[in-house]
This record gives sequence, structure tokens and C-alpha cells, in this order.
Amino acid sequence: MGKRLIFLTNDDGVGAKGLARLIEVMRPLGDIVVVAPETTQSGMAHAITMSSPLFLREVRREAGLDVYACSGTPVDCVKMALDHLLDGRKLDLICSGINHGSNAAINVLYSGTMGAAIEGSFYDVPSIGFSLDDHSLDADFEAAGIVAREIAENILTARPELPLCLNVNIPRGRPEEIRGTKVCRQCRGYWKEEFFIRKNPAGRDYFWLTGEFQNHEPAATDTDEWALANGYAAVVPIQIDLTDHRQVASLAKVLDK
Amino acid sequence: MGKRLIFLTNDDGVGAKGLARLIEVMRPLGDIVVVAPETTQSGMAHAITMSSPLFLREVRREAGLDVYACSGTPVDCVKMALDHLLDGRKLDLICSGINHGSNAAINVLYSGTMGAAIEGSFYDVPSIGFSLDDHSLDADFEAAGIVAREIAENILTARPELPLCLNVNIPRGRPEEIRGTKVCRQCRGYWKEEFFIRKNPAGRDYFWLTGEFQNHEPAATDTDEWALANGYAAVVPIQIDLTDHRQVASLAKVLDK
Repeated sequence: MGKRLIFLTNDDGVGAKGLARLIEVMRPLGDIVVVAPETTQSGMAHAITMSSPLFLREVRREAGLDVYACSGTPVDCVKMALDHLLDGRKLDLICSGINHGSNAAINVLYSGTMGAAIEGSFYDVPSIGFSLDDHSLDADFEAAGIVAREIAENILTARPELPLCLNVNIPRGRPEEIRGTKVCRQCRGYWKEEFFIRKNPAGRDYFWLTGEFQNHEPAATDTDEWALANGYAAVVPIQIDLTDHRQVASLAKVLDK
Repeated sequence: MGKRLIFLTNDDGVGAKGLARLIEVMRPLGDIVVVAPETTQSGMAHAITMSSPLFLREVRREAGLDVYACSGTPVDCVKMALDHLLDGRKLDLICSGINHGSNAAINVLYSGTMGAAIEGSFYDVPSIGFSLDDHSLDADFEAAGIVAREIAENILTARPELPLCLNVNIPRGRPEEIRGTKVCRQCRGYWKEEFFIRKNPAGRDYFWLTGEFQNHEPAATDTDEWALANGYAAVVPIQIDLTDHRQVASLAKVLDK
């Protein structure tokens, strides 16, 4: 068996601490190619760059590690790697992260980290997004790195059915405080938003998004929010059929003609 | 009953032809508030603006019609309207579009039009994204407008269970060529991408995304791609639980600890 080839990306940008930690823990598992955004792309979801061109820049090259920065979104980075840079070389694993902040529950929809992981799974390669449930500037990625490598090793060994995309959220805390890993489902709930409104130097109002997640099923014990709140790394397998199959028949009565 | 209040947005920008057509066909149904992006936001998916502030600009105000432009993404426009501008006024309907190009099948994931429609459905208001399956510069939005109004009227009358989000894709053609409306499911398939690579004036490579949709179930007759290809407006009800429930148990055996 040849050496494994692993692709990494993120949404916090090529210089982010969470990506450095991901590179560190994944290097023992194989050769690493990174294409990460030049700039922070938090909240970029599944966005792609259509109306302007993209640029690619080599950042670092050494034995077993190639790092590039791409001017686009996280999903652009995945396409750039898989459709251009790797030019048909077969990957064993795609990982995105480690994101600075949780992508549990509905955050999976807004997350650039998960946009990249979901896109990666379209290429018949197991794909995992990792996020640390800690937004603080001095967030400690030590434990998240340990969990990420363990899950990556398990997936490389078990080789589950494809397509495979995992949304992994890791609680804050030191390694010995993580209680374990739970496969669970996406918790229901929405963000309750407010805009922070101030005036700019020219006297014009500007708006900055802020808000709070509202958990709509706080009593459920099989959700990612429950797992995180109880000290477990939460793993949600992701699929991309957005059809609400339960509504198809009733809506057909109203709309079909 | 008071006059209805309808919110409109899009991803092609406040000046787009498809939005003008949507305003035209929706005005007879109620008062209209529009918050649309200042610039084109195609492919922006569910992106939100987190790392910079947003600006709002009034574009037009007349009896029963207020139009604003927002500097952010389509989802930002929805949040700006629902969390700030409308300030608690109850909406009867949210519509996004009419998009210049199809958002059937996996395009629902990349689409800013559908990002906005999905976000709208989080506010307990029926929410519909409309797209015309025609990318040509001189695309004719006449038929799409007729279909959009008819579907909007049916939803306003039938008041289906909430949350409700519809992905409506309308075939190109004159009104008499549209064969009807079909509620269906999201077709499986991915984009096969290639980058168009050229050199910029400074001699540096730039990359422009291009590709072709690969239909993975060309024989299925219950998909949005089938409906569109056969002259029907395709309506897919959308839900946002991305959990692959079928994989939860098997993955728990590999990963739970």
C-alpha cells in the first residue's frame, strides 16, 4: 500500500491556528496537501466564486506537506484542489477545520468549514469537518486535535460506505475532560438575530450581525447540542437531499396541475 | 382582513430583471417590501456577513412598494428585513428570485436565491424561491412571472403547514409552452468542474470556475430535473435537517466511545 494522501482546508484562512493543529495531527497519517482561503471565510456556507477569477499561491512546500492559499471560498478551495491541483491523484481523506467555533445544529448551514467538507464528499472521498466549540481568541485546540486524529484514523480503518460526510463538533476543555464521542443527529433550532447598529465616520448607519442560538429541543438527548453540552465530541453524518419528502404528497394536492 | 404584506429578495442584485418581474406579478397580491443585494450574489448559498458591517440604502418608495438595497448576501437581506426593517410586522409570504438560471437538483446548495428562501422559512412565514432555467442574457421572464404568481396565490390560499420552503424552477419558453406544475424531489447528481485558466496582465495564472451538471438518475420521473426537462415547473419542498439518519447506527458502531 502506498502512502496515504490527505487533503485539508478550512474557513478561518491559511494562517489559522486550528488549521495548524489539523496539519500537525494529520501528518503522521499520510502526505498532506492543503488549499485554504487567503482570508477569513467564516459564514461563507457553500458559496462559490462565479463572478470573478481565483488565484492560487504556494505558501509552503516540504517533504509530505504542500500548502497553498486560494483567493476564494472554502468550497472554491476544494474544487481547486480536486479539479485542478491534484489532477486525478486519489485521496484517502478530506478534512476541514479545525474551525474556531461550533458548527453544531443549524450552524452547519452557515458554516464555510462544513461547506468545504460537504463539497469534499461529492468526490467519493470520506470527508470530515471539525469544529471546536470555543470562540475565544485564545481557544485551546489541543484536545480537538486529538479527537480529530482519532476519528480520522477510525474512518480510514473502517472505510464506511460512501458518500460520507461528518460534522464533528468538539467541546472546549483539556483532553482529559472530553468524555467520549457520540454519533448523533442535528439539533433543531434557529438563531435569534439582532443587529448591532452604529454610525460610521461619515454618519451613515452600519449594521453588524449578532445573535443567539435558540435550541428548540433542549430535552432531547440524541442531538449534537446535547452531546457537546455534556462533554462529548458530537458526530453528525451529513446528506444533501434537502427534499422534505413528508410534504411532497400534500403539496401535490395544492400545486400539481 | 388587512392588506397582505409580502417580502421579496433575490441574489442577482437589486437591479435584476428577474426581481423586476417578481415585483410586477406580486404587487396585486399585497404591499411589497424588497431588500435585495447591491451587487450580484450568485453562488453565495447560505453565506452571511460576519467579519464586516452591512449598509442599507433606500432605492424606491411609493404606495405599497418599498425597495432597499443591502451591501451583503441574500441571507443578510432576509435577516436585515425580518430582524430590523420590518420590526415585528407580520409577513404573509417571502419570495426570492426570479433567479437567472436553474436552481434544481444540487444547485439548491450553491444558490443564493435558495439561501434566502430557506432563511425566510425560519421566520414562520411561507417562503418560496423562484428560478428560471435560462442563463442567456436576454432570458424571457414572462412565463416565470405567471407561474410565480399562481404558486404564490395557491400557497396564500391553501396555507400549508409551516415551516414551508419551496424550490420552484421554471422551464424556459413562452407561457403557453409551460405544461403545468409538478411537486417533486431533488434529483441526485453533482457538477463536473473544470477551471478555465488564463494569465492576467501581470502574467499570473487566474482560474475561473466552469462545469457541467451530471444527472445521476436520468431515468427517474419524479425529480425536479425530469419535470424541468419535460416542460413543467418543478416544485421541491425543502427541509434543513442534513442528518443522514440511515448512517447514524452504523457509524455509532465505529465511532461511539
